[in-house]
Amino acid sequence: MCKVVHPVVPYQFETASEGEAVMETAGKVIRCKAAISRNPGEALVIEEIQVEPPKAWEVRIKILCTSLCHTDVTFWKISAGPAANFPRIFGHEAVGVVESVGEHVEEVKEGDLVLPVFQSNCGECRDCKSTKSNSCSKFIENEYHNTMPRDGTSRFRDKNGEVVHHFLFVSSFIEYTVVDVAHVVKISREIPIDRACLLSCGVSTGVGAASKVAAVEAGSTVAIFGLGAVGLAVAEGARLCQASKIIGVDLNPQKFELGKKFGLTDFINPASCGDKKISEVIKEMTDGGADYCFECVGLSSVMEDAFNSSRQIMDQGWGKTVIVGVEMHGSPISLHCYDILKGRSVCGTLFGGLSPKSDIPLLVNKYLNKELHLDGFITNEVRFQDINKAFELLHEGKSLRCIIWMDN
Amino acid sequence: MCKVVHPVVPYQFETASEGEAVMETAGKVIRCKAAISRNPGEALVIEEIQVEPPKAWEVRIKILCTSLCHTDVTFWKISAGPAANFPRIFGHEAVGVVESVGEHVEEVKEGDLVLPVFQSNCGECRDCKSTKSNSCSKFIENEYHNTMPRDGTSRFRDKNGEVVHHFLFVSSFIEYTVVDVAHVVKISREIPIDRACLLSCGVSTGVGAASKVAAVEAGSTVAIFGLGAVGLAVAEGARLCQASKIIGVDLNPQKFELGKKFGLTDFINPASCGDKKISEVIKEMTDGGADYCFECVGLSSVMEDAFNSSRQIMDQGWGKTVIVGVEMHGSPISLHCYDILKGRSVCGTLFGGLSPKSDIPLLVNKYLNKELHLDGFITNEVRFQDINKAFELLHEGKSLRCIIWMDN
Ligand SMILES: NC(=O)c1ccc[n+]([C@@H]2O[C@H](COP(=O)([O-])OP(=O)(O)OC[C@H]3O[C@@H](n4cnc5c(N)ncnc54)[C@H](O)[C@@H]3O)[C@@H](O)[C@H]2O)c1
Ligand SMILES: NC(=O)c1ccc[n+]([C@@H]2O[C@H](COP(=O)([O-])OP(=O)(O)OC[C@H]3O[C@@H](n4cnc5c(N)ncnc54)[C@H](O)[C@@H]3O)[C@@H](O)[C@H]2O)c1
Ligand SMILES: [Zn+2]
Ligand SMILES: [Zn+2]
Ligand SMILES: [Zn+2]
Ligand SMILES: [Zn+2]
Repeated sequence: MCKVVHPVVPYQFETASEGEAVMETAGKVIRCKAAISRNPGEALVIEEIQVEPPKAWEVRIKILCTSLCHTDVTFWKISAGPAANFPRIFGHEAVGVVESVGEHVEEVKEGDLVLPVFQSNCGECRDCKSTKSNSCSKFIENEYHNTMPRDGTSRFRDKNGEVVHHFLFVSSFIEYTVVDVAHVVKISREIPIDRACLLSCGVSTGVGAASKVAAVEAGSTVAIFGLGAVGLAVAEGARLCQASKIIGVDLNPQKFELGKKFGLTDFINPASCGDKKISEVIKEMTDGGADYCFECVGLSSVMEDAFNSSRQIMDQGWGKTVIVGVEMHGSPISLHCYDILKGRSVCGTLFGGLSPKSDIPLLVNKYLNKELHLDGFITNEVRFQDINKAFELLHEGKSLRCIIWMDN
Repeated sequence: MCKVVHPVVPYQFETASEGEAVMETAGKVIRCKAAISRNPGEALVIEEIQVEPPKAWEVRIKILCTSLCHTDVTFWKISAGPAANFPRIFGHEAVGVVESVGEHVEEVKEGDLVLPVFQSNCGECRDCKSTKSNSCSKFIENEYHNTMPRDGTSRFRDKNGEVVHHFLFVSSFIEYTVVDVAHVVKISREIPIDRACLLSCGVSTGVGAASKVAAVEAGSTVAIFGLGAVGLAVAEGARLCQASKIIGVDLNPQKFELGKKFGLTDFINPASCGDKKISEVIKEMTDGGADYCFECVGLSSVMEDAFNSSRQIMDQGWGKTVIVGVEMHGSPISLHCYDILKGRSVCGTLFGGLSPKSDIPLLVNKYLNKELHLDGFITNEVRFQDINKAFELLHEGKSLRCIIWMDN
């Protein structure tokens, strides 16, 4: 089924040498294949698509491979309200090569290996200039992230000339996509491209949530709810921070085996806790609650469990809950005021608190230096034409990340 | 009505000289007056009370003056459930002189000027030794803080020999109280005693919430919900941190006038916002929301307003909401998951994140150096026999702090 199985050699670039002529496609509409989501929750359809050339500050990228993150699934299922935008091209975890660039783009050029990322990083706004968060306030107007961020229009048209929506400023289930330069990170060509793909969303998010947002300290205790790629990347981040105990919580016990290599020390299946609340089990295992709790499922009930499992009083600051999961139904989270008052805190994070342009290259280096484990996250691979299989595997709990290889 | 109006000279101690004989009351039961709360929400009754001598690690304190904090009112009104404990002696914001000490107490001695504080600070537990929070895990068993913290018994009996409950490990509506040494802070005799009294709870809490928990930065924007002594102390803390805009929100417009001297720059009365949500008004005043929001009322609906008024994306970290108010009805707070995910955070605080023994003396110095404003918080004074008047004044919104003078 797979074109390439775990290629550990770097990608061989065809158009690599400096000063070469621009691609002959530059400046023109490209007709290529996209996996279009026409209706919520229904299988994607591979169709011909027209991809416009990049406008000013935009980059057109030839996708090499992409993978499926649960956030795609969550939005693909939304069937009503302003967040439901169909037809749409999902996918936001990918790696590719720059095909051409629009006016004013100096940061990357044709042939560069790049990650498109949903988190903008313009480098100019007051938030990008601050070191205290990874927020970027350049494009906050575009709440439904269904267009290009800068001018609010689409670069995609289907074979009938109808507009197809973007997703999260990336849209990688397509052979060529257009992304704003604020959403592009140039990376070293030394890293195998499928490993690089993981850093475009899920793994960076999890590692950052542990190391940057929570800033897990050596010797502290960690509880992770949901052991998909994001949750296990939190474990990997906590392992790098030398947490003493890393408890994984998942309804699927197979995730524990997968997670041991990322530092998981203990496992709890909520379905096997009997009459006990999960928070009670964790309190017993950790001297009154975990120092840091992470929600990586996307359910408000699990977020509340995570909050209630955090230490009321802790050695190194207050028991902290970090919300990483995207709530599947948009439900609110309900917290007991006294618990907050006594010192428990809650915060959330997009992209693990990382600033993509400066932090992703550091993670690439950590992988190349054999500090950061990436290999174990890739559990499956499929060809682009079999993309719906990736949805099935994630749904069935049979994959962490399934690499979807483009036919190029 | 008042015995002393704003005494600006330090208290004259009668038993001050070093090496003098211990008080003749030492080791004996003291019969004195207490304002006992017999039934929830009903006027306190001045009665004779028997106060046992301090046991090991305990200190008996002669109260000089005390004041009413809203937390007393909140618990005084609770009529059912395990938090309702009557008869009880309320009061937890006070200043006094050590009358005698129990075995093992070396930190303070007879004649010392001290503040009793509800927040324990044993100095020995792993939490006290950490610099990251003001938590103390020495006495976490005593959830209803209705006894002495160490042995779970009371030192108070009424004239019929019936046990009277403690409140918050302080119980200051009484002429002599017994407090664990972990709840006692020795302070300089240079500060006028009524000003010192304010530092025993409300003002320390507010100043700490701004300066330590939020760590408000110069130039940032602040919104404070509830302008009692606690909320205005947050303003004072934000003023000391050089916040550029300090918006006060209160249903009582008189609080704005009182608050100007503590740095309030703007005022919003939620009742005058018409169709607009308070969060919309604040967003318009602050470039998308206040950097730091503080809830100092004690209502979950106001906590939600505070959260929604915080900046989604901010210059100096994420829009942060600090919960200071004690929810009056124990209601939960409901937060939108996406707002947390995009970077808004919530935390709470007891005693403003301050470690009483090390931080209160610093605030005393700041007052003596004329950096910290305290005088304006004292709006009323009554004799002990008129203590119910203090409840009325707070209820009617006519006081920030009412000093209740003991007859000694
Ligand atoms: N904040 C961000 O920047 C960001 C980035 C990437 C992904 N996400 C979100 O992170 C979450 C995880 O993504 P993923 O790709 O790892 O998903 P995934 O589907 O691979 O993993 C989710 C895991 O949760 C487990 N699970 C489901 N219900 C559970 C329950 N009630 N209790 C315990 N475990 C349960 C599943 O068995 C699965 O192992 C999603 O909500 C996704 O949208 C957020
Ligand atoms: N966390 C702690 O360590 C700590 C310490 C001390 C006090 N507290 C709590 O702080 C809160 C404030 O205490 P205080 O003594 O200053 O009380 P207070 O009664 O003097 O002040 C409360 C203020 O809130 C205003 N208010 C009431 N409802 C409001 C609404 N819906 N919107 C806006 N304003 C409203 C009132 O007009 C009043 O000015 C209380 O909940 C108290 O229990 C907490
Ligand atoms: Zn993702
Ligand atoms: Zn920016
Ligand atoms: Zn108080
Ligand atoms: Zn302690």
